[in-house]
Amino acid sequence: MKEQSNQRSVKERSKVRLRKKQICQALLVKSYVAKGQTPLFPRIFGHEAGGIVESVGEGVTDLKPGDHVLPVFTGECKECRHCKSEESNMCDLLRINTDRGVMLNDGKSRFSIRGQPIYHFVGTSTFSEYTVVHVGCVAKINPAAPLDKVCVLSCGISTGLGATLNVAKPKKGSSVAIFGLGAVGLAAAEGARIAGASRIIGVDLNSNRFDEAKKFGVTEFVNPKDHNKPVQEVIAEMTNGGVDRSVECTGSVNAMISAFECVHDGWGVAVLVGVPNKDDSFKTHPMNVLNERTLKGTFFGNYKPRSDLPSVVEKYMNKELELEKFITHEVPFSEINKAFEYMLSGAGLRCIIRMGA
Amino acid sequence: MKEQSNQRSVKERSKVRLRKKQICQALLVKSYVAKGQTPLFPRIFGHEAGGIVESVGEGVTDLKPGDHVLPVFTGECKECRHCKSEESNMCDLLRINTDRGVMLNDGKSRFSIRGQPIYHFVGTSTFSEYTVVHVGCVAKINPAAPLDKVCVLSCGISTGLGATLNVAKPKKGSSVAIFGLGAVGLAAAEGARIAGASRIIGVDLNSNRFDEAKKFGVTEFVNPKDHNKPVQEVIAEMTNGGVDRSVECTGSVNAMISAFECVHDGWGVAVLVGVPNKDDSFKTHPMNVLNERTLKGTFFGNYKPRSDLPSVVEKYMNKELELEKFITHEVPFSEINKAFEYMLSGAGLRCIIRMGA
Repeated sequence: MKEQSNQRSVKERSKVRLRKKQICQALLVKSYVAKGQTPLFPRIFGHEAGGIVESVGEGVTDLKPGDHVLPVFTGECKECRHCKSEESNMCDLLRINTDRGVMLNDGKSRFSIRGQPIYHFVGTSTFSEYTVVHVGCVAKINPAAPLDKVCVLSCGISTGLGATLNVAKPKKGSSVAIFGLGAVGLAAAEGARIAGASRIIGVDLNSNRFDEAKKFGVTEFVNPKDHNKPVQEVIAEMTNGGVDRSVECTGSVNAMISAFECVHDGWGVAVLVGVPNKDDSFKTHPMNVLNERTLKGTFFGNYKPRSDLPSVVEKYMNKELELEKFITHEVPFSEINKAFEYMLSGAGLRCIIRMGA
Repeated sequence: MKEQSNQRSVKERSKVRLRKKQICQALLVKSYVAKGQTPLFPRIFGHEAGGIVESVGEGVTDLKPGDHVLPVFTGECKECRHCKSEESNMCDLLRINTDRGVMLNDGKSRFSIRGQPIYHFVGTSTFSEYTVVHVGCVAKINPAAPLDKVCVLSCGISTGLGATLNVAKPKKGSSVAIFGLGAVGLAAAEGARIAGASRIIGVDLNSNRFDEAKKFGVTEFVNPKDHNKPVQEVIAEMTNGGVDRSVECTGSVNAMISAFECVHDGWGVAVLVGVPNKDDSFKTHPMNVLNERTLKGTFFGNYKPRSDLPSVVEKYMNKELELEKFITHEVPFSEINKAFEYMLSGAGLRCIIRMGA
């Protein structure tokens, strides 16, 4: 009965069409494209974006044309066990699926060229002026929020920010280690800054990132290459036994292990954010766990897209959260390949792609 | 300066002498003795006990002769970072140390025979009519509580109970898997019963333990030997994807891994209690963490001995917690070797050794 009900709601709610003359986008498709996990082609990529609702399908009551929204690569159906749980945001129905290229209700694409389908990507396909997304993958936000800024909240920045604010939950005055100073890690540092952490230790193999990181509240830096002992030992020595919290944003399993082992016994909490490789194995001596450390994983910063993203946008609107720092480049849609180059060369954090231009 | 201050307080507070005509004891020395981790001999073993204060040393203000107490193998100095943290009970000063056989303030033993020292054991040495313990290792309890029942709270039962109530924190109506149905595991099950869990799944390699476990709230049983797939998969199939909480009380690293992997993604919490072997390695695919599972370790059920044990005794006094179920045997001190036999043969859960007899 439950499943039947879910299916009906999908059918009724599936048609939200976004007009994107105002749309802006950042890039995070590298992992899907580079690793060849999604052989489904042709398809329209793109997922970090902001837009305006152009039309809604039958049964959609939460949204109307003109609403400002953030499309999200994962969703919130509000009916499954995960959506009903206070503790999870991993919606059973709309959880990210890189292999699915069609709408849920009829298994068909809404894009085509010369009669042949073009497939969707993670339910968003935002590298286009118009797209069609499931209503469960759209967060309605404050229409006063500038879409060319808050668009970065629809994936990576919220992921890092929420990992710290919702999962690690550092107390005021505490110490936090951030592994990986890319955009997600810097968003995790921004979360630690907002939470009032007094020591934010950035860990990265690229020392060039350290200056930039200071803008995000990072107070100290460790490059594991500069030391001839494991970085967890370096951090333990710096902090009289370990940091209070750590957030791992690299996807390297060794960084995950270091992030866990560098938190203090008794109260330390390590949060894993980075996506590992298929054959990785997280290994640690169980006494590291027994000594009252906590290991937690998070997905999209534990934010429920529709319920929680509007309040993250408000954090930006009331100047608690500084998004401008993350936006290092901007290009018109016609120059999208430049945005890929910035990403691949590590030249910037987020590049806005202006669709109207 | 901090260390100096700690040392002074040790000196002032170290002399609490327990009269134990009323004392009762259960056994949990197996791991220390059998694995030969403590070559310090001769020494007086014993740590799960209850007693009455016979005299107090200079500077001891929290206790007076006649107070009823539980001596504890670990301590609470109330001054270190762990004691001051709400999140930890792993006192820096008095944390269990199986290698130390002397009092902290002067490095000497309080026991001797023919002029030669007999060493202490984990700060308690309760297999004796009188002992001397640090005031930080003594919990003052309700004098109306029967010592021959509540003595079992000074180690294993509180460890299992607290692992569930303080760390796993199952919600009413939730599902909990308990790995290992010895006394600690059954205490963890008792915690799940008290918390109102609706499904308590006991996992043990010995099916004979299942009948007994029903008394502690266990509703279903799984013997991993009865299945040709990993027990985490069996449990996931029984529970539509995994249990809400699990508590591992075996010390087997494979059970630890199963306990972690059997909790539901999105919200599952696994708590490790059992003490692993020196060369064990906890291994899991990091995606199991990323999918919003939590792994936590606990020591003595996260109870701070002096602050928290009195309230656990009250749980027994108000009949919320049933301790009689754990006490399967009783012998006079002169027959202590029978108690060891019961323990080694697995014939019972706890054997009370009555010191006056």
